[in-house]
Amino acid sequence: MKQIEKNLMLFSGTSNPELSESIAKNLGLELSNVKITKFANGEIYARYLESVRGADVFIVQSLSGNVNDALMELLIMIDAAKRASARSITAVITHYGYSRQDKKSAAREPITAKLVANLLTVAGVSRIIAIDLHQGQIQGFFDVPVNHLTALPIFADYFASQGLENICVVSPDVGRAKAAKKLSDLLDADLAIMHKDRPAHNMADITSVIGDVEGKDCILNDDIIDTAGTVVAGVRTLKKAGAKSIHICATHGLFSGPAYERIENCADIDDVVVCDTVPVPLSRQTGKIKVVTVAPLLARAISNVYNESSISELFDPEFAL
Amino acid sequence: MKQIEKNLMLFSGTSNPELSESIAKNLGLELSNVKITKFANGEIYARYLESVRGADVFIVQSLSGNVNDALMELLIMIDAAKRASARSITAVITHYGYSRQDKKSAAREPITAKLVANLLTVAGVSRIIAIDLHQGQIQGFFDVPVNHLTALPIFADYFASQGLENICVVSPDVGRAKAAKKLSDLLDADLAIMHKDRPAHNMADITSVIGDVEGKDCILNDDIIDTAGTVVAGVRTLKKAGAKSIHICATHGLFSGPAYERIENCADIDDVVVCDTVPVPLSRQTGKIKVVTVAPLLARAISNVYNESSISELFDPEFAL
Amino acid sequence: MKQIEKNLMLFSGTSNPELSESIAKNLGLELSNVKITKFANGEIYARYLESVRGADVFIVQSLSGNVNDALMELLIMIDAAKRASARSITAVITHYGYSRQDKKSAAREPITAKLVANLLTVAGVSRIIAIDLHQGQIQGFFDVPVNHLTALPIFADYFASQGLENICVVSPDVGRAKAAKKLSDLLDADLAIMHKDRPAHNMADITSVIGDVEGKDCILNDDIIDTAGTVVAGVRTLKKAGAKSIHICATHGLFSGPAYERIENCADIDDVVVCDTVPVPLSRQTGKIKVVTVAPLLARAISNVYNESSISELFDPEFAL
Amino acid sequence: MKQIEKNLMLFSGTSNPELSESIAKNLGLELSNVKITKFANGEIYARYLESVRGADVFIVQSLSGNVNDALMELLIMIDAAKRASARSITAVITHYGYSRQDKKSAAREPITAKLVANLLTVAGVSRIIAIDLHQGQIQGFFDVPVNHLTALPIFADYFASQGLENICVVSPDVGRAKAAKKLSDLLDADLAIMHKDRPAHNMADITSVIGDVEGKDCILNDDIIDTAGTVVAGVRTLKKAGAKSIHICATHGLFSGPAYERIENCADIDDVVVCDTVPVPLSRQTGKIKVVTVAPLLARAISNVYNESSISELFDPEFAL
Amino acid sequence: MKQIEKNLMLFSGTSNPELSESIAKNLGLELSNVKITKFANGEIYARYLESVRGADVFIVQSLSGNVNDALMELLIMIDAAKRASARSITAVITHYGYSRQDKKSAAREPITAKLVANLLTVAGVSRIIAIDLHQGQIQGFFDVPVNHLTALPIFADYFASQGLENICVVSPDVGRAKAAKKLSDLLDADLAIMHKDRPAHNMADITSVIGDVEGKDCILNDDIIDTAGTVVAGVRTLKKAGAKSIHICATHGLFSGPAYERIENCADIDDVVVCDTVPVPLSRQTGKIKVVTVAPLLARAISNVYNESSISELFDPEFAL
Amino acid sequence: MKQIEKNLMLFSGTSNPELSESIAKNLGLELSNVKITKFANGEIYARYLESVRGADVFIVQSLSGNVNDALMELLIMIDAAKRASARSITAVITHYGYSRQDKKSAAREPITAKLVANLLTVAGVSRIIAIDLHQGQIQGFFDVPVNHLTALPIFADYFASQGLENICVVSPDVGRAKAAKKLSDLLDADLAIMHKDRPAHNMADITSVIGDVEGKDCILNDDIIDTAGTVVAGVRTLKKAGAKSIHICATHGLFSGPAYERIENCADIDDVVVCDTVPVPLSRQTGKIKVVTVAPLLARAISNVYNESSISELFDPEFAL
Repeated sequence: MKQIEKNLMLFSGTSNPELSESIAKNLGLELSNVKITKFANGEIYARYLESVRGADVFIVQSLSGNVNDALMELLIMIDAAKRASARSITAVITHYGYSRQDKKSAAREPITAKLVANLLTVAGVSRIIAIDLHQGQIQGFFDVPVNHLTALPIFADYFASQGLENICVVSPDVGRAKAAKKLSDLLDADLAIMHKDRPAHNMADITSVIGDVEGKDCILNDDIIDTAGTVVAGVRTLKKAGAKSIHICATHGLFSGPAYERIENCADIDDVVVCDTVPVPLSRQTGKIKVVTVAPLLARAISNVYNESSISELFDPEFAL
Repeated sequence: MKQIEKNLMLFSGTSNPELSESIAKNLGLELSNVKITKFANGEIYARYLESVRGADVFIVQSLSGNVNDALMELLIMIDAAKRASARSITAVITHYGYSRQDKKSAAREPITAKLVANLLTVAGVSRIIAIDLHQGQIQGFFDVPVNHLTALPIFADYFASQGLENICVVSPDVGRAKAAKKLSDLLDADLAIMHKDRPAHNMADITSVIGDVEGKDCILNDDIIDTAGTVVAGVRTLKKAGAKSIHICATHGLFSGPAYERIENCADIDDVVVCDTVPVPLSRQTGKIKVVTVAPLLARAISNVYNESSISELFDPEFAL
Repeated sequence: MKQIEKNLMLFSGTSNPELSESIAKNLGLELSNVKITKFANGEIYARYLESVRGADVFIVQSLSGNVNDALMELLIMIDAAKRASARSITAVITHYGYSRQDKKSAAREPITAKLVANLLTVAGVSRIIAIDLHQGQIQGFFDVPVNHLTALPIFADYFASQGLENICVVSPDVGRAKAAKKLSDLLDADLAIMHKDRPAHNMADITSVIGDVEGKDCILNDDIIDTAGTVVAGVRTLKKAGAKSIHICATHGLFSGPAYERIENCADIDDVVVCDTVPVPLSRQTGKIKVVTVAPLLARAISNVYNESSISELFDPEFAL
Repeated sequence: MKQIEKNLMLFSGTSNPELSESIAKNLGLELSNVKITKFANGEIYARYLESVRGADVFIVQSLSGNVNDALMELLIMIDAAKRASARSITAVITHYGYSRQDKKSAAREPITAKLVANLLTVAGVSRIIAIDLHQGQIQGFFDVPVNHLTALPIFADYFASQGLENICVVSPDVGRAKAAKKLSDLLDADLAIMHKDRPAHNMADITSVIGDVEGKDCILNDDIIDTAGTVVAGVRTLKKAGAKSIHICATHGLFSGPAYERIENCADIDDVVVCDTVPVPLSRQTGKIKVVTVAPLLARAISNVYNESSISELFDPEFAL
Repeated sequence: MKQIEKNLMLFSGTSNPELSESIAKNLGLELSNVKITKFANGEIYARYLESVRGADVFIVQSLSGNVNDALMELLIMIDAAKRASARSITAVITHYGYSRQDKKSAAREPITAKLVANLLTVAGVSRIIAIDLHQGQIQGFFDVPVNHLTALPIFADYFASQGLENICVVSPDVGRAKAAKKLSDLLDADLAIMHKDRPAHNMADITSVIGDVEGKDCILNDDIIDTAGTVVAGVRTLKKAGAKSIHICATHGLFSGPAYERIENCADIDDVVVCDTVPVPLSRQTGKIKVVTVAPLLARAISNVYNESSISELFDPEFAL
Repeated sequence: MKQIEKNLMLFSGTSNPELSESIAKNLGLELSNVKITKFANGEIYARYLESVRGADVFIVQSLSGNVNDALMELLIMIDAAKRASARSITAVITHYGYSRQDKKSAAREPITAKLVANLLTVAGVSRIIAIDLHQGQIQGFFDVPVNHLTALPIFADYFASQGLENICVVSPDVGRAKAAKKLSDLLDADLAIMHKDRPAHNMADITSVIGDVEGKDCILNDDIIDTAGTVVAGVRTLKKAGAKSIHICATHGLFSGPAYERIENCADIDDVVVCDTVPVPLSRQTGKIKVVTVAPLLARAISNVYNESSISELFDPEFAL
């Protein structure tokens, strides 16, 4: 007879190596070695360079950049770990791509967020750690445990330290009202909600705001900044409605296509705060764009999962999405 | 060789027989025969009294009343149809019980709405027809097709015919803002959103309203009226904010516990309109409470599924939840 | 590297809390804390109040009382434990409701006992501990391990201590003959078997007995006493056939509907002995009805499962059903 | 667009070709062509010689003879039909081998009857047609539809035509009492049940009989005759108890090992009647051993499955096992 | 009752639209309409613009170009078709990316070709049509039917018409010897096999040839031309061994990275013939590179699948890989 | 809380007990006790005689002899171990029967090697250890980990010690060229490949050889020797081509049907070397036939799996098939 020992092995995919390094540092670990190659024909190859037999494997990946490459790389890493007899495989998905395609809004659409869950499951994942999923219901797309963390307290801490006086948290649309409400509660602030005007009235979308923002320091909160179109439209509306200052915060800064340009060109934006769940080039982390880190949060989640202690302390249920 | 003929068979569980009858009438069919018994020890027994071999079986059930009995009855009917070689089994779930437990809001909670989806799937269901699920993401809890209908156009038609002049659709909380927005668009009306005040301020929950309701005919829209506590708190807030008239509408009228009494005692409620997705006793359909029917909507959905024509015409994608 | 420690956590559903407490006491444990609520609309909510991450969770539940509520509560508890990363989840099902619907006896029937097995499996159960299933074949409805215990030795011990002199164990029908035979072997007693007379002869069912019961102390053994109709009919037949005394024993005392009254009114019954697998109100445990406990048996089974030692010592293979 | 035509294709495995031919004749069909080879190394190869794409394939096989060869051959045929795009695959299992290993009677035993069900399911079977399974609960080992037929009416017809005057149907042990009771009801006959005496009394098993067989024409009914040891022991007991004549009937005549010799040598056996679910060599169908056919029964079941009409008429629920 | 009609709908992914059009033309059909978009953030969105309810959907896609985008697009299209109640979904995978990662050649590798099969299966595919898979064993990675076609007869026809006199088919390595042998049989030609010399001997890989190629018209056959490195090394060896002319043929012309340049620069290559399973830009189809079409082959396979007739006529079993 | 201890239990099926014993000896263990019986009717029964609860169970079995009996025995042993709560179940399959039916070579064939994988999976296997599978792709037929070992280095060691001077490794057909190439690399030897001549030329198959074998010590390498027909044909060709000596080696010596006789009668065979993965009767291990053992290789693989250390050291990736 012998006693089981197990060990935590932390691997990084190629989509967010800085955050992976940062998590490792927070855990007092080195990242374990995996060889990941992309062949000339576009196929990805991955091979673990250390034995993972019997280990609790954690793979950090952001489903962003080329989202399909990042997803396939993660699936391949899971497949390889499973076939190499890992004891458990936890995908630490810092940004869950396709999260907005989480229901059918029109006939004959896919539900790609569920498809992604099915792909991860069939590849052999044992557990998911995620952060600010577009909707909390995505947890239910899985039958393996999902540890769903939120960066809202990180944003609350950030803005609490900024000396704003009369804060109003603003939701960019009706669908995000719940998260804005939570941030407003954390900051003991007011709440306003924007929505697009009835499209029948005229051709161009007009964004309206419900709630009083006049003279207030507005924090426009979203889960994702993509092309920044919604943000800029919202800022215009808020300014017209008399906002004193306008701060943007979002967990996942994709900054796709014209996003950086739009933000730069929009004089009414005071700053844009995002997390490092999606890598933001250092060259872009100047001027208005600020990055706060989720590494300590994820490190604590990983550590508690590994040590089989409760991780509920990490997220205040009252503020879970 | 021979040609396949198939036939549509419509069965009713015991939780909403009136709606089942009404759907059958709309389809020009008789309900097929099934024997359902509850034994003295509480166990349910079901047996089809006609052959279902090769048939497209539709089972109408509302997961309400004793929700667990209703669910188990549905599961047993699915199991029996599967073992009797039905060609396909569609559960027409007029109210999806447990739909509000659709994510973990606290550690160590279940996701019962997903559990229900898993139970239906393992029992052998081929397709779901549902109406105004608490969240559209519940579609993604299934891998079988889900046809998700909405009663919002029915409510819009109803209120459009009531001669209201200055309508404001009100969401009872931030989480339901999206549906309220859709109803307001259908009615070309204003929008207001309520939310509970920061709990730190005082002990009792205080509901606030964002948006202007003064002098307006308010329609407070929710998916479910349960104990009517939220409704009554909302009405109080709206009245204080100067609402001219207050109308309540909700797809699923559960009217649990003190609901009827609360509504009766709340003088500021003009009327409460619900669908027949959950049976409302005739004795209660007097005074303020009005019931509008979804039978034609469900009949058309069933007919189109059976005839393998598109059912997308039944729900305008713009207004799908 | 670290060594794994795991711990046993014993939870009770709401259907048989006395037995759960008793098992805990036998194990020298406290029951762990879980919050179970039934909302006004009939939906059940469960949340573990202690971390179950990495634990071997045992949930004691009797699928009786409102059998569907009890089953759904158990499924919800399993779902929550799975999502909270329990290491294993064992359902200790003291009475397996729906066990008599274990095959199709007529066309278009369900096999609800299998459906229940499928529901437990899809919810995420790791192992079943059960006691005197209606048929041993129900073990095969599962692909997870089933530890199937029997209370027959407990009954044998009980009756061996009662000073009966000339015992004949009687099966109430041909389907239960095997269990009666086993009890008769344990008691070194005679065997008789009853069956319903050919229904063509007359309208009313007439029960016949094969084997000689005249002048004997008869023990009528069944797995379940439900409405007690079969029992009372059997007693009448035995008395007519000259039985000296008549004792009833059954593992699961459901006592549904008219059961208590029928037993009370049947003067020829000496006593009725059941186990505590289904709770019998203390007020009923007077006069003829006696309750013997299976708590030590279940505690030993749980302990051995947890300690990964053999549990075969707990049931003599010769007497397993 | 085009209309679907489908066709019934009946294939025979190698374990019971005579019955397959007979079923085909009853259906007015030719058996379809399949090449089945056993290589020198013992591996089996099967290939369909006609297209099965879109067809309803029925495969007749008896899991007897070399039971593992017969099972593997059936699994291979199912796999090939699945990969060749058959519309549905029905296994017509005339004798279900391993049916007696249907539960754990001792610790660390398999439940091979369930394993067989799992193997058939994973290979891709769509439906099972079986006859006199050892226990009706085996239906629940499957989640695909099982049509469970019984040969008891065939036996009843046979014996009704034999001019027996005072029939007593006898069960060879307590576990088969239910089937014997059904046959006795069909024949309006008496019932007796045998069981092995308490083994503690002496070394050799002694079989006792409950019920009166003196001067009666006894029909000893079992589902399987294997080595005939139980039969011969039972005959001895019945003779000693005064039976006038002794007739044996069993659906599945395996006649393993010393069976034929034992039967021949047992002067007290009048005749042994079995079905053709397991092939009995013509050379053995002389003297005492008689074979009655289930071909018309199976042909009707296949025809009704194919025509998607009810097959419940084929088995009187009252007499289903 | 009604009769089922079904219809064939052919959709094209974005990776090989020319071939899709060509297949449609061969079938006498129009491609059905699907909207496929790639958002600025890299996520793919697909929606069918016609009802697919009850239809037999065929989706043509080449897993090449950005192979992960192509795969994810296919998976999303399958998911959407499944949720829109298609009757069956056939993926016509003209080039199966990742096919060379079909086994573990080193520890801790994935088996990505199996992963891809699992992804397609969980997404909901009903059948695969593929052409010249890297290994025929990939068929067994699926449990749905796979129709595996080969382009070898197309190449044989092509070269038979080229007036070559003394043909020797050459395999580029030992692993492809089987396919080269088949092509040589089709052409009634000689066979030679190349292999890399023992690496211990020297640093640079040296390719040797077994078999006599002197003075012969050599056809170097492979399944895939990727970066053309192997091809060029092989050509050098063949030339040195006295080949008269050198023709290359491969089903899938990926032409990754330096491939075009290498081929152009290699004076000893007479021509390179590939199929249109992977799109080759028109600008590249000049000079040495020739493209032959598989559209008629795929069209016939689709037609036969749809009409449920045998498709075995399409591939001569003797030459199947 | 307590610490988990686990233990390795090694069981032997009945198909290769000598190798099992030998592995146990190499591990310094005794084989654990299991009772395996074959009843007169051909059904197999297995029961573990020691508790396997919580143990890592390894079952050694060769799918040879009566391959279907051996497979079913293995499946039954897995089922029993699963139901007895083993922690993990590793099938050590020394010869994987049906491995040559690994793809469809003709329409309407099964893929039996995949079927076998599915059967093992559904029975409950946790991991496979195999040796020289017919194709490495069979690893991908499983989603559980497969540790695929090779005996080629054992053969290389053997022949290196035989004093051969001018070795040429010969593949018996084009499909086995890869393995022959690997053995030739291990021995730093030449390579030749045989293939059957175009069948159109004449009736009898004629085997040709590519590569120069004249005056060389030829080692004809295959994975399996079945009826030895291919071997003998190959030897004839080699002799005619001038081979100096001819040695045969194959991992799995089935020696079916006329194999022994053919080998004996073929004067040109110097010796035949096989492994003990399939038992060769001692009486046959004389003269030309020599057996080398894989017991130390398998023992090391088992030990490393159990100790959760890497097993990659056991197979040089460069030489893995």
